[in-house]
Amino acid sequence: MRKSLYMNILVPIDGSKHSEKAILHACDMAKNYQSRLTLLYVVEKSAPINLLDRKEYLKILKKFGNNVLIKGKKLATQQGIDSKIIMKEGNVANEIVRMAKKEQSNLIIVGSKGLGATARFLLGSVSNKLANNSPCSILIVK
Amino acid sequence: MRKSLYMNILVPIDGSKHSEKAILHACDMAKNYQSRLTLLYVVEKSAPINLLDRKEYLKILKKFGNNVLIKGKKLATQQGIDSKIIMKEGNVANEIVRMAKKEQSNLIIVGSKGLGATARFLLGSVSNKLANNSPCSILIVK
Repeated sequence: MRKSLYMNILVPIDGSKHSEKAILHACDMAKNYQSRLTLLYVVEKSAPINLLDRKEYLKILKKFGNNVLIKGKKLATQQGIDSKIIMKEGNVANEIVRMAKKEQSNLIIVGSKGLGATARFLLGSVSNKLANNSPCSILIVK
Repeated sequence: MRKSLYMNILVPIDGSKHSEKAILHACDMAKNYQSRLTLLYVVEKSAPINLLDRKEYLKILKKFGNNVLIKGKKLATQQGIDSKIIMKEGNVANEIVRMAKKEQSNLIIVGSKGLGATARFLLGSVSNKLANNSPCSILIVK
């Protein structure tokens, strides 16, 4: 078999409907390209911490992120695709770029909106930064 | 056969190496998804016209665009993919979005750089506008 263009696909997710759709597209691509799938949740460290103790806030985010990853993995499994799940803390765009390099990703698949209020993954900010700094191709799923 | 996720793929090109790479990725996708491929060249109407008569300048751009499209189509044919070629005049992002709607594109594939000096298709300007206004998914090829 010829080498696939997209051996490693990275999907940064946030638990939104948009990132669920990104997972579904990623699974479809993974079937066609025999890709390995990695789901990433980034705990945004610079999140607002006005209302809660910082430690408590991060704990909640991590718990949420863990649920998002488990739900994402389950969704991929339902499509017949095995996936690796990873959680990171830090700046969302930076962590995605770092993970893409580490995993030698050939493709990052993201929803066109999100990654939610939590991660401030807004087009024109994070995704733009991603598009400029990404070591690989990016699929923005509508 | 189940309905493909990407029945219609639109590739805006500018004759650069980046857009050639976008064509190659598009052909690979087209094989996997049984997609119809459309190559689009947009003559940027707002291009600088200091040095030349406007009409003359547009004539040169159109000739260039025609060559780019023919070369692009040839490249796709070499990959075993038939393609439709279209030239438009106007604002690059607007024309891409318009064409994507008209062609009912499911995916726009663009190079990560370009579409060259001619079209000012820079990340953060046109592609950002595209990402926000596109009626369909976008693959930015690195």
